[in-house]
Amino acid sequence: MVFEILTRDPGSEARRGRLVTAHGTIETPVFMPVGTQGTVKSLTPDELEALGVEMILGNTYHLHMRPGVERIARLGGLHAFMHWPRSILTDSGGFQVFSLARINKVEEEGVVFQSHLDGSRHLLSPETAVQIQMQLGSDIAMVFDECNSYPVSYAYASESMQRTVRWAERSKTAHNLPEQAQFGIIQGSIFLDLRKSCLGQLEAIDFDGYALGSLSVGESKEEMLAVLETMTPLMPASRPRYLMGVGTPEDLVEGVRLGVDMFDCVMPTRNARNGMLFTSWGNIQIKNSCYADDNGPIETGCACYTCQRFSRAYLRHLFIARELLAYRLNTLHNLHYYLTLMATMRQAIEEHRFETWRKAFYAERASGSGAL
Amino acid sequence: MVFEILTRDPGSEARRGRLVTAHGTIETPVFMPVGTQGTVKSLTPDELEALGVEMILGNTYHLHMRPGVERIARLGGLHAFMHWPRSILTDSGGFQVFSLARINKVEEEGVVFQSHLDGSRHLLSPETAVQIQMQLGSDIAMVFDECNSYPVSYAYASESMQRTVRWAERSKTAHNLPEQAQFGIIQGSIFLDLRKSCLGQLEAIDFDGYALGSLSVGESKEEMLAVLETMTPLMPASRPRYLMGVGTPEDLVEGVRLGVDMFDCVMPTRNARNGMLFTSWGNIQIKNSCYADDNGPIETGCACYTCQRFSRAYLRHLFIARELLAYRLNTLHNLHYYLTLMATMRQAIEEHRFETWRKAFYAERASGSGAL
Repeated sequence: MVFEILTRDPGSEARRGRLVTAHGTIETPVFMPVGTQGTVKSLTPDELEALGVEMILGNTYHLHMRPGVERIARLGGLHAFMHWPRSILTDSGGFQVFSLARINKVEEEGVVFQSHLDGSRHLLSPETAVQIQMQLGSDIAMVFDECNSYPVSYAYASESMQRTVRWAERSKTAHNLPEQAQFGIIQGSIFLDLRKSCLGQLEAIDFDGYALGSLSVGESKEEMLAVLETMTPLMPASRPRYLMGVGTPEDLVEGVRLGVDMFDCVMPTRNARNGMLFTSWGNIQIKNSCYADDNGPIETGCACYTCQRFSRAYLRHLFIARELLAYRLNTLHNLHYYLTLMATMRQAIEEHRFETWRKAFYAERASGSGAL
Repeated sequence: MVFEILTRDPGSEARRGRLVTAHGTIETPVFMPVGTQGTVKSLTPDELEALGVEMILGNTYHLHMRPGVERIARLGGLHAFMHWPRSILTDSGGFQVFSLARINKVEEEGVVFQSHLDGSRHLLSPETAVQIQMQLGSDIAMVFDECNSYPVSYAYASESMQRTVRWAERSKTAHNLPEQAQFGIIQGSIFLDLRKSCLGQLEAIDFDGYALGSLSVGESKEEMLAVLETMTPLMPASRPRYLMGVGTPEDLVEGVRLGVDMFDCVMPTRNARNGMLFTSWGNIQIKNSCYADDNGPIETGCACYTCQRFSRAYLRHLFIARELLAYRLNTLHNLHYYLTLMATMRQAIEEHRFETWRKAFYAERASGSGAL
């Protein structure tokens, strides 16, 4: 994997970069849609390509539970299995093990847990998480880490962070797939000294990129921003910086401002399936009765497939009737919104006017003419 | 609406025709996918066009209950509402009133029923069913009829058929939208003398086309074929013949052999959502474990979007994981199968070799190498 910074915004920490993996080029800052079970819910790979998606995220935990990683490996790896020719980043399974599964034991070796699907017992360790991701054949793999919920005591956050560092070292040792990059994950909850200590130790191990984990897990926006503001300047400038599982459009803008290069989040896709649609002047809930006779698109001027063809009235009807097409059309719009937002930010950085753009973004988003 | 017969098969009653509506040309025999609630479930109009769909069926009852026909009319009619530029045939609502709603009264005036959605009370009569379809702006409207379940007594079938004829007369009188064709519906259950009497009376009223209703409702294949074999030769040769709600690939082949021009059925779309996929050598259930490691397409050589890209193993995974993409990909394949079957039959008729083709079709379908 090659990462280069093309230009920096003079008025912020924002940076415009380019990542090259075995499966293509990714313009950064980038948003990666989440393809939990080998599919970005409701969409085809062709639709993702048409949206301009350059990298998606796959979930190791989910794919390991079903259909199983050995099976995917036999079938040619995750790219071939889901017919996605572009880049894939896989998480380590840590987040899902701590949020979805029934955990039996967290010990030095790893985590023994029971599948949320059938109760079967599994061990996820640094070595198995690395092995699984090598079998999936993703372009970027994440080290196995312990995710902290919020709030957590300083003592536990410290103990957990140190274990995450030891696991990171074992993850690095276990990794032997040259065409796959490996990223470390900075833990430490909202405790800045723990976050700094973690980063220092991870840098000593030396990863291809560094991620911030366990953010947007219940802490306040101020607490999240404090971690970002403290940590991003300390993260190696020559390596990609990845803010995991974040977030709202505003979160992306703040992340970019502070020098983050990569984001993933279920928000655009999950909210679409719940009828919540993003626009540049606020979010709307399509099921609201005010849209019943509204023959306009979700957002006037939006170039997405959905807005080019269908009215709010039709989308409301589909959503209320629980038609499968509703989830598709809403997902297409929301992903288009997120990807266009990223492209707009990339251009603003290139043109060295990120801060001016950012002010205009907030003014428009807050105008709320459609915040219903 | 213009209908012309282009050629007839010398060895059967099969005929190759062309129907021209205000929204385009339809090559017959034609299969119309069902778009119950203003959408062929899971697909976009663009996908339907790419599949070669020339006419879809819309359900008056469903659209009347939700989002409401006045609303669709205000929004520009059904074509504009669902962004479908090609032809639409609407049923009269009769079938759904008798199968879905809670019926309060069937009387000469019409049917008083309660919505299956919210229990609200409605009257559907010949005049309201015609009015609703004119408001929807479909290209072909069906008269309001009483559907018979199976079995039904001769006495009831006779009484009901006579009412359907009186309703057909009122439907004709109420209809005043020149660009919309209107078809009569032949009832009479499996009683051939009732069917013949019904057809004779409908012909005296004079409709743009004639349909056979209340078939494939529980009667045996032999009983259905007996009605078809008796009735199709009696139906006016110069008008389209429409077999409503039928059926399996084999049913379509028999219908075409006997001179039917139009079909609709939920089978390809509904079965797709249940994981049942059609192939030329039989049907498969994609969730079966034998497909877990099967890297081949649903059907080798199939030109559909799904078969060109995805393996049975992936489709099985999506289906078992209840991923939205499963329903789309399965639906695309099954509709492609049905539409290709119709195109193949049209070509066989053109080349005057329908019977030869039909024998080969049965031999292949019954070969059952994939009938699991």
